[in-house]
Amino acid sequence: MPKRLALLCCLLPGVAFAQTTGQWVMTTDLWGNPAYRTLTLVEDGDTLTGDIDGDKLAGRRTGSTITFQDVDANNATYSFTGVIEGGRIEGIAEFPDTNNPALRAQHAFTARRIPDRPAGPPRRHEFAPTDYSNTFDPHRLPVLTVWPGDTIHTTTLDSGGADENGHTQALFGNPQTGPFFIATASPGDTLVVRIKRLRLNRGYADSLDDIVDHALGASLVAGANDLGKPVRWKLDRVRGLASLETPTERLKGLSIPVRPMLGGLAVAPGFGAAPVSTGDSGRFGGNMDFNEVVEGNTVYLPVQQPGALLYLGDAHALQGDGETTQYALETSMDVELTVDVIKGKAIRMPRVESATELMVLGQAGSLDEALRSATTGLVQWLQQDYGYTLSECAILLGSSVRYGVPNLAGRNVGVAARLDKALLRK
Amino acid sequence: MPKRLALLCCLLPGVAFAQTTGQWVMTTDLWGNPAYRTLTLVEDGDTLTGDIDGDKLAGRRTGSTITFQDVDANNATYSFTGVIEGGRIEGIAEFPDTNNPALRAQHAFTARRIPDRPAGPPRRHEFAPTDYSNTFDPHRLPVLTVWPGDTIHTTTLDSGGADENGHTQALFGNPQTGPFFIATASPGDTLVVRIKRLRLNRGYADSLDDIVDHALGASLVAGANDLGKPVRWKLDRVRGLASLETPTERLKGLSIPVRPMLGGLAVAPGFGAAPVSTGDSGRFGGNMDFNEVVEGNTVYLPVQQPGALLYLGDAHALQGDGETTQYALETSMDVELTVDVIKGKAIRMPRVESATELMVLGQAGSLDEALRSATTGLVQWLQQDYGYTLSECAILLGSSVRYGVPNLAGRNVGVAARLDKALLRK
Amino acid sequence: MPKRLALLCCLLPGVAFAQTTGQWVMTTDLWGNPAYRTLTLVEDGDTLTGDIDGDKLAGRRTGSTITFQDVDANNATYSFTGVIEGGRIEGIAEFPDTNNPALRAQHAFTARRIPDRPAGPPRRHEFAPTDYSNTFDPHRLPVLTVWPGDTIHTTTLDSGGADENGHTQALFGNPQTGPFFIATASPGDTLVVRIKRLRLNRGYADSLDDIVDHALGASLVAGANDLGKPVRWKLDRVRGLASLETPTERLKGLSIPVRPMLGGLAVAPGFGAAPVSTGDSGRFGGNMDFNEVVEGNTVYLPVQQPGALLYLGDAHALQGDGETTQYALETSMDVELTVDVIKGKAIRMPRVESATELMVLGQAGSLDEALRSATTGLVQWLQQDYGYTLSECAILLGSSVRYGVPNLAGRNVGVAARLDKALLRK
Amino acid sequence: MPKRLALLCCLLPGVAFAQTTGQWVMTTDLWGNPAYRTLTLVEDGDTLTGDIDGDKLAGRRTGSTITFQDVDANNATYSFTGVIEGGRIEGIAEFPDTNNPALRAQHAFTARRIPDRPAGPPRRHEFAPTDYSNTFDPHRLPVLTVWPGDTIHTTTLDSGGADENGHTQALFGNPQTGPFFIATASPGDTLVVRIKRLRLNRGYADSLDDIVDHALGASLVAGANDLGKPVRWKLDRVRGLASLETPTERLKGLSIPVRPMLGGLAVAPGFGAAPVSTGDSGRFGGNMDFNEVVEGNTVYLPVQQPGALLYLGDAHALQGDGETTQYALETSMDVELTVDVIKGKAIRMPRVESATELMVLGQAGSLDEALRSATTGLVQWLQQDYGYTLSECAILLGSSVRYGVPNLAGRNVGVAARLDKALLRK
Repeated sequence: MPKRLALLCCLLPGVAFAQTTGQWVMTTDLWGNPAYRTLTLVEDGDTLTGDIDGDKLAGRRTGSTITFQDVDANNATYSFTGVIEGGRIEGIAEFPDTNNPALRAQHAFTARRIPDRPAGPPRRHEFAPTDYSNTFDPHRLPVLTVWPGDTIHTTTLDSGGADENGHTQALFGNPQTGPFFIATASPGDTLVVRIKRLRLNRGYADSLDDIVDHALGASLVAGANDLGKPVRWKLDRVRGLASLETPTERLKGLSIPVRPMLGGLAVAPGFGAAPVSTGDSGRFGGNMDFNEVVEGNTVYLPVQQPGALLYLGDAHALQGDGETTQYALETSMDVELTVDVIKGKAIRMPRVESATELMVLGQAGSLDEALRSATTGLVQWLQQDYGYTLSECAILLGSSVRYGVPNLAGRNVGVAARLDKALLRK
Repeated sequence: MPKRLALLCCLLPGVAFAQTTGQWVMTTDLWGNPAYRTLTLVEDGDTLTGDIDGDKLAGRRTGSTITFQDVDANNATYSFTGVIEGGRIEGIAEFPDTNNPALRAQHAFTARRIPDRPAGPPRRHEFAPTDYSNTFDPHRLPVLTVWPGDTIHTTTLDSGGADENGHTQALFGNPQTGPFFIATASPGDTLVVRIKRLRLNRGYADSLDDIVDHALGASLVAGANDLGKPVRWKLDRVRGLASLETPTERLKGLSIPVRPMLGGLAVAPGFGAAPVSTGDSGRFGGNMDFNEVVEGNTVYLPVQQPGALLYLGDAHALQGDGETTQYALETSMDVELTVDVIKGKAIRMPRVESATELMVLGQAGSLDEALRSATTGLVQWLQQDYGYTLSECAILLGSSVRYGVPNLAGRNVGVAARLDKALLRK
Repeated sequence: MPKRLALLCCLLPGVAFAQTTGQWVMTTDLWGNPAYRTLTLVEDGDTLTGDIDGDKLAGRRTGSTITFQDVDANNATYSFTGVIEGGRIEGIAEFPDTNNPALRAQHAFTARRIPDRPAGPPRRHEFAPTDYSNTFDPHRLPVLTVWPGDTIHTTTLDSGGADENGHTQALFGNPQTGPFFIATASPGDTLVVRIKRLRLNRGYADSLDDIVDHALGASLVAGANDLGKPVRWKLDRVRGLASLETPTERLKGLSIPVRPMLGGLAVAPGFGAAPVSTGDSGRFGGNMDFNEVVEGNTVYLPVQQPGALLYLGDAHALQGDGETTQYALETSMDVELTVDVIKGKAIRMPRVESATELMVLGQAGSLDEALRSATTGLVQWLQQDYGYTLSECAILLGSSVRYGVPNLAGRNVGVAARLDKALLRK
Repeated sequence: MPKRLALLCCLLPGVAFAQTTGQWVMTTDLWGNPAYRTLTLVEDGDTLTGDIDGDKLAGRRTGSTITFQDVDANNATYSFTGVIEGGRIEGIAEFPDTNNPALRAQHAFTARRIPDRPAGPPRRHEFAPTDYSNTFDPHRLPVLTVWPGDTIHTTTLDSGGADENGHTQALFGNPQTGPFFIATASPGDTLVVRIKRLRLNRGYADSLDDIVDHALGASLVAGANDLGKPVRWKLDRVRGLASLETPTERLKGLSIPVRPMLGGLAVAPGFGAAPVSTGDSGRFGGNMDFNEVVEGNTVYLPVQQPGALLYLGDAHALQGDGETTQYALETSMDVELTVDVIKGKAIRMPRVESATELMVLGQAGSLDEALRSATTGLVQWLQQDYGYTLSECAILLGSSVRYGVPNLAGRNVGVAARLDKALLRK
């Protein structure tokens, strides 16, 4: 028994009998960096089987001590020895040294047991958030564990941290509600988020009169020096209209139908990623600012961590393409989502599906790369779900693809590739 | 009298009396490069007044010999001495030396008289082209002179040079019908092209199963090696539907409503520009491949040369955004256009107006620059025609702008910035 | 006294008398996000003066309880009440509500006292790291506090986490040594890092035979499928040469002079930023992979946090422009740096100065933006330090600027704008 | 005999006997577009053999009438019937209809005989230009025919059209000397241009104090409004130094060694291309503005037309990277070039070789694409001339490639990929 574990056992002398069989989230401490994996244990007598992120494990249990090991695709062996107590395992893992496979390195690990799925039909969870995250963080403790099919009813703050009463509840910069742990979701799966309801819950939104650098030609730059001033919009929740609180003479009649959307929707980024600013985005979603993330549409995100860890926030009452004002019509929101997991289906990047369209969001440091990414993602969707060849995809795109540019305001810009579902085989 | 002109007079001894008053297109030979300007002459006794591209001139006429000079904004003097005969002037100009304003340089010039506007209402011209241009060329002789308000009914070849019978009538690469000389149009004006009718005139279109480099992510490139094969589409002109001539099993049911458009629409590029390939584009329009250049819409182009010199061609029965197949559904077309000129109104780049939207096409070597250009052009439109301030434009864009990406297949890529006209003050 | 503070006082009844006058790093907890500021306190009797990040404060001390407040440029008042004990203050701050200036919000704060500068000349610190950071993290505790003029002698791991013996000491992905707290450095200052010594400390480096996406044209992509294989280089430390451990026939004679460089050099990112992956970069420096960060050169970084928090790592024995192999010749390194602080001088982005050249590194999501950034940074340098006008800068650049492209392998690409110092006035 | 040819024969009744065997440049009129091909005829009795651009031909001669035909790689037959008189053939060709291979289309053709290579060693040609081209034009008549190994000594105007006396001899915009017809050069070959001598021939150069859009960050744009003013430099030809004619106080001591270069060097663009503005560039070279096109270096260009048609102009006394002032130090120049042809060797894009380096110039609408192109071109060079595999190229680049950015001032921007020749196998 490794020395550090022996010490551990001394500290936990009287551990009670605990249930081993089930799903666990295992956290290994790699030189200060927590790495999360899904551990499935099946106890039969004193024999343990199961898997770690899909790699089969074999082990045994002796009292409260369990040992098991798995072998990965490169034939490397990972050994674990731990003490189980209640819904928690604590122990020492032995891994091959990354740079010297001949050597072995010890790492502390813990695991927490995911409760079994409650019996009965999918549930509806009322969740009133009390704190918020300013990062899309793989390390933040889940605020709620839900199962595929469950519905979450909650609220989001505006991007400045204000709630439905205009009171600040969190630090500005797109504070997020969550994360929600979606039981059964593992890296390589797809998280399905159906937006059942997305409604205004206060009477105003805040914006600017800005034009972001990514949209502004050189000939306008000199005149743009005094842009960036705050602009408050009134939101008429009954009629669903936005108008300026203090319009100039020329904008007095301006009244625009709102189209509430979630600017931020994310799973936690994967192993090796630092927590990501809620102003940033990536293939995990994030601050996509995609104005098709609206009520009635479904968002697909590639799961990167056990439980997916779903975050949401930064809702907009209305947003033009590109979010060219840097802030759209920022407001708090009433949100209802139903989640699902497609096991074993990996997607490259965020997808949005409406009643009539497939939409893929490519995100990159330039529009040229973002558009390439979006096209590639749409082709993948057509191949993966509809069985088209690349040649057939080319024909469909050439005649019918539509490109939009939802986001110009972030470090990533976003291009959406869209296709009418009516063209596609069933 | 300059020596070269004395010689000229000897060669033209018996010139008849000719009408001087009127509009002329003057061509000056600058070291082998023809430069075109609009010359307006008003004869009163033997005194000449008028202007050259807006700079006032003063001169006199003695028999068939006329002399006049103008002074430009930099106070440089340009002198002209010529012989007038019928609708033509031929002579010698004296300009300041470009690099040595103290010196004077002689250049031959000619002018051709533009006929007076016919009396009566605007006319409808039936024009059956007999040859085609493979460049947007400022030097090509006009095929027809028309007046603001006139309508032109003509045809275009497909991009491969084939006509409505599938017979080759011109070299492939977007051969164009035209140029049409629009009387009164001068650099600094805006040409208005109303697309009254754009109809299929044959039963097929040719395309490819390609994905252009600008749309293709690295992960698809390897598999794209055998793309680029010809694809023929059947066009059902009665029902307005396109379907594949020899579909794969999976594309058998594919039938898409056509949306005929002009890929090429241009005025001639301005002074100093070489003739531009009909595969290329610029602020003069050109091979824009913008799928909103459709029947019912109006295109605005910035005039660069006297008479604008309107070219059209490269019609598509249907085109997705980006023309990602490199060739859209290329076909010949029946076209009817009404032209107009807005004097003294300069626009930055091509604009398209539909019943419901303003659309500006930005074109550049990258999407990032093209989008900046499109936004800048849309702001200019809002300022110029609607009187909004930059701050008001920013607010309108932030809430409501839509971006599309019509063109990825050329050297320029194109981004369209679009705005709903319902939002705008009257 | 706020309720939370009253509780605090109960918990700390017998605090000893403590030194107030001096510099402190104050941490305010903004809804779970620590914000750091430099607090300068001067005690005179029971009166406190000083400043918080430059904003003057006024307060008083009563026993171990201190209260003070400052007013910022927008006339907002920030009040602090705390208990001082040893080198630590703990208390409650009251700030205006971000979204409702009429309201006040309470935030816990702490402060830790920075020791006074030791008497005598600048010191040389031997620092043997025991753990490493996988983020450029504003929240990580400093490993050492040093003063301007001090020298740090330490080591860095290779990008895979291996030390001079090839043993893994940290998680792969550019683990960093540090952070070092540079006393007196505050946001708005410039940190000066003179690289006194940068030497190989082992006999090999690891690389790949890859070509990164950002360097690879479409025509090479198909053939690039089996690139990305590990390549080990032998490092001859005596002669300073790198050669392949198992060369192909054609590369047998290849022997290249090493040019050791630090791929990673950073101050902590500023308030509001999440910890940044050590694979990423920004105006704070980071994983710049700039092959001019070599022995003898000086790097200037814009300080973003109290104490700057200097990180270093990811050394390369040799790197071509662009780090096109994704991994350069990655190796551990022996490093000696002298640090300095230029108070009140803000720079836009990282600068590097050699004996002969000024070099500014622009970093962005595309080369086009990175180059614009680099030019802008070089112009700022010429204006700020040499007093040239923009017109004079234009003339110097037009005749003499050199651009390089150090980095193509990260999310940011990097362009360097370089100018020969011999051209510049003294 | 086709009808049009019969007419032709009537017009040319008494044609003298003429030499058939030899090389000809054949021009076919494709609906108004001249297409050039290299025709090699070998007469043996009345039988003709030879080839057209490498496709074998067979034919016969009857008096002054010759007929021949070739079959291309797609098995299409091209037939020619013409009348030969002196060094000229005139006739009618029959080609398959482009869009209907079953049909045949008639096209007029002419051919002009290229004189035989003079006996003796390569020659040195003194060429004093009398007119200049403002396009890189495939249709302009050659000013001189030279053979591989020959040397041309000539002059170029400055970009504004002024000669060594400052007198304007051509229209501004980079007027070019040429084109020179390089006998034996055909599409698919490589033209080698050795710059033997490149010397100042007057005492001044003209520039601006500008910063081009592609180099200018948004924060500088507002201040850049009054840039763009003329700046004259004095050129000290004895000491090889440039200094400002009327320096500001701060630039009084500025004196920079000149480094004369050719901004423009081109072969004519290939079939289907319009004449290209001398401000533009492409894989044929053109206005590359590459500051390594200097005395002592060798430029390789991919031949696109029979005889290559070499143009040169737009010399700079000195130019920083990027030509950020829009005009470099523009001046007239004394030039001596030796030309050579590498038969059957096709290169992708312009290459420059110095005594120590390989340099490839990638040109595109964005720096990101230009850099990809440059890398691809350098890899092709290493593969083609040195026999390295892609993996070996990756290793060489990763350790040693250098990127520069010669050109930011044109529609294409240019990136140079450079590699030290000392690293390469012999």
